[in-house]
Amino acid sequence: MNTSDMARFDTVDLIRAKRDGDALTDPQIDWLIRAYTAGQIADEQMSALAMAIFFNGLEPRELRRWTAAMIDTGERLNFASLGRPTADKHSTGGVGDKITLPLAPLVAACGVAVPQLSGRGLGHTGGTLDKLESIPGWQAALTNERMLAILDQIGAVICAAGTGLAPADKKLYALRDVTGTVESIPLIASSIMSKKIAEGTGALVLDVKVGSGAFMKTTEQAAELARTMVGLGTDAGVRTTALLTDMATPLGRTAGNALEVRESVEVLAGGGPADVVELTLALAREMLAGAGRGDIDPADVLASGKAMDVWRAMITAQSGDPDAALPVASHTEVVRADRDGYAQTLDALSVGLAAWRLGAGRARKEDPVQAGAGVEWHVRPGDAVRRGDPVFTLHTDTPVRFEPALADLADALTIGDELPAATPVVLARIG
Amino acid sequence: MNTSDMARFDTVDLIRAKRDGDALTDPQIDWLIRAYTAGQIADEQMSALAMAIFFNGLEPRELRRWTAAMIDTGERLNFASLGRPTADKHSTGGVGDKITLPLAPLVAACGVAVPQLSGRGLGHTGGTLDKLESIPGWQAALTNERMLAILDQIGAVICAAGTGLAPADKKLYALRDVTGTVESIPLIASSIMSKKIAEGTGALVLDVKVGSGAFMKTTEQAAELARTMVGLGTDAGVRTTALLTDMATPLGRTAGNALEVRESVEVLAGGGPADVVELTLALAREMLAGAGRGDIDPADVLASGKAMDVWRAMITAQSGDPDAALPVASHTEVVRADRDGYAQTLDALSVGLAAWRLGAGRARKEDPVQAGAGVEWHVRPGDAVRRGDPVFTLHTDTPVRFEPALADLADALTIGDELPAATPVVLARIG
Repeated sequence: MNTSDMARFDTVDLIRAKRDGDALTDPQIDWLIRAYTAGQIADEQMSALAMAIFFNGLEPRELRRWTAAMIDTGERLNFASLGRPTADKHSTGGVGDKITLPLAPLVAACGVAVPQLSGRGLGHTGGTLDKLESIPGWQAALTNERMLAILDQIGAVICAAGTGLAPADKKLYALRDVTGTVESIPLIASSIMSKKIAEGTGALVLDVKVGSGAFMKTTEQAAELARTMVGLGTDAGVRTTALLTDMATPLGRTAGNALEVRESVEVLAGGGPADVVELTLALAREMLAGAGRGDIDPADVLASGKAMDVWRAMITAQSGDPDAALPVASHTEVVRADRDGYAQTLDALSVGLAAWRLGAGRARKEDPVQAGAGVEWHVRPGDAVRRGDPVFTLHTDTPVRFEPALADLADALTIGDELPAATPVVLARIG
Repeated sequence: MNTSDMARFDTVDLIRAKRDGDALTDPQIDWLIRAYTAGQIADEQMSALAMAIFFNGLEPRELRRWTAAMIDTGERLNFASLGRPTADKHSTGGVGDKITLPLAPLVAACGVAVPQLSGRGLGHTGGTLDKLESIPGWQAALTNERMLAILDQIGAVICAAGTGLAPADKKLYALRDVTGTVESIPLIASSIMSKKIAEGTGALVLDVKVGSGAFMKTTEQAAELARTMVGLGTDAGVRTTALLTDMATPLGRTAGNALEVRESVEVLAGGGPADVVELTLALAREMLAGAGRGDIDPADVLASGKAMDVWRAMITAQSGDPDAALPVASHTEVVRADRDGYAQTLDALSVGLAAWRLGAGRARKEDPVQAGAGVEWHVRPGDAVRRGDPVFTLHTDTPVRFEPALADLADALTIGDELPAATPVVLARIG
């Protein structure tokens, strides 16, 4: 992991080359990533390079090497000892996106192991670990050995990604976050895929969100990101597909930590919102197909109750109590419809911001989150509504937060006279 | 100079705005420059912003404000007490560019005061202070009071720019130098003009070099830089013009510190290379016109010997001995022509690199320079040459440097059968 035996380059020459539209060579990329991780390239040089990449991109060959170099700065996991195929899912983040919670136990109940290394939320999108931590006793951190043991015994594990996978990405992401260089497709793709490839999964499905509540606002951007990531995964030997899914409207009926756990358990019990069930099954089918088990119908397995059994075992294995009452916020406020009609649109970004302001999310990574805080919406686009019907319930432990959250929601729901056209959850498949 | 009473902004928002092609507001620019100078904006943020400016530029209004904000971080000089007009010259740097040395005393001899705050060389272009320091005893550093006194008594002073002028530029330039963000016309223009405007000169002529030995390789780039700088100077109340001048061929007959002082003294004595005399007079005419003394012909003043008198007084005032023998390198090597013909081209960059490698320049700003090192060329494009004639003499105190310098010069001079078309020294005037 040191650079003493490597070719050396002048960092300024490499920044200029990328700035002027030239491609970097493989040895240059290897050196850049290792030297930056080792502290031999200054942050102000790497941020200038990241901005040049924002403008001039990376060619496919450069991007593959960049991703491989980031992987090489850390450890790689290996699930060969499980004797079972593995499959993983990554979502680019959305509002009300609780899909990992029912999906991981469902796919495990189909016989495919699911090592789901997850993160926490930042800004208006929630984090899977924050949601699970609302379950009394549940612990996110596991050693690699314990993670493998749970995977072997139960078939699914959702836990915090260790610091050992692609440490270059951790350092580079923190730099991009403060230098306006997050929004670059090659840098996003290499950040996500370096960790997923290092994780050692055999199959991977990417849930690339599109719409106001997502990082990618247009289908074109989302498709480019999806194609880029599918290419990186495939080239690295991971059977990778992507679904572009709608994030103009938030998923399900709730955004918030305990609120979303409750909704996920409803799905595992055979109920839950139709869009959450639909997306869970669509992603499960991709994971099963990637793992060579395309013959299994996850809808049957969900109906059988086996996925709920895996969920309970999985929560218990991480010290959680699947029967414990979930936290409830101490204060609620209801918003009512001001007219009759049909719900036309429900803006995912507005709902996400409101949930965040109510305490469900964090502004800085060291902030705590409220387990019970969040937003419930009682209508989705296409639902009939009457003046005075409750349309939102806001939950928080800190009622001073109601006012800004209500401001976020002021224009979040539109009501009109006509029944709007239905929009599908899954917009496209790439793979 | 603190930012506590100013509007505050989120640095990442400003980087993103510039990255996405938006213009920054005046309060945003004021805050950025002050906060960066005060250490409240991290280097990695400013370098990312500089790279975004490299790609997206600055509008004229942004550039004026950026330059004004840099000036406001430091002191401004004021020459009103002199009771004489002032004029200054700035060159963007070239090979064999000793013009400041005869020009400043010449313009002073015409009755216009010349406060010439100069720098040192880096890379293949020499620095005015390095050249003058080859004169035994000469001191570059002066207090502001002493500089004003010399200006008042003698009419010209060439000294080191103090650290008080536009300290923001000093910090930003050092950052740009290591982050591949030097080559941006608005950043170059604001760097140069912030110091020249803060210096308080009444008139300014810019010598913008074009060609292999210059920073700007094409006339189009050089013209854009010149127009940008003339606009900034004019808007700030400085009567500013620019000449685009040739730097495909090096100026005069020598590149090196003492070598160029010798050539400059020849010009002051009424001799010297024709191109050096021509450019000195052209720049003097611009300075005199800007200072309201366009009626004076500097050629007459040069011929009168008065410029030499000012030179001697100016050197003496900074502890230099104008009669002392100049340093001579301990080793020389001669390169001879390998055929008969006419010299076609003499590549400025190759000559500059050879002089630098022989010890005339420095690779890092803390490196020493050799006073006697450099290159003499005995032919210029258009000169007839015979096989075996000396074409270059290389000078150094460290003979191990001959080999790399000879490699630089291998293709520097081309000889052909036809007399080449003459190229003018002054390519265009902008103002």
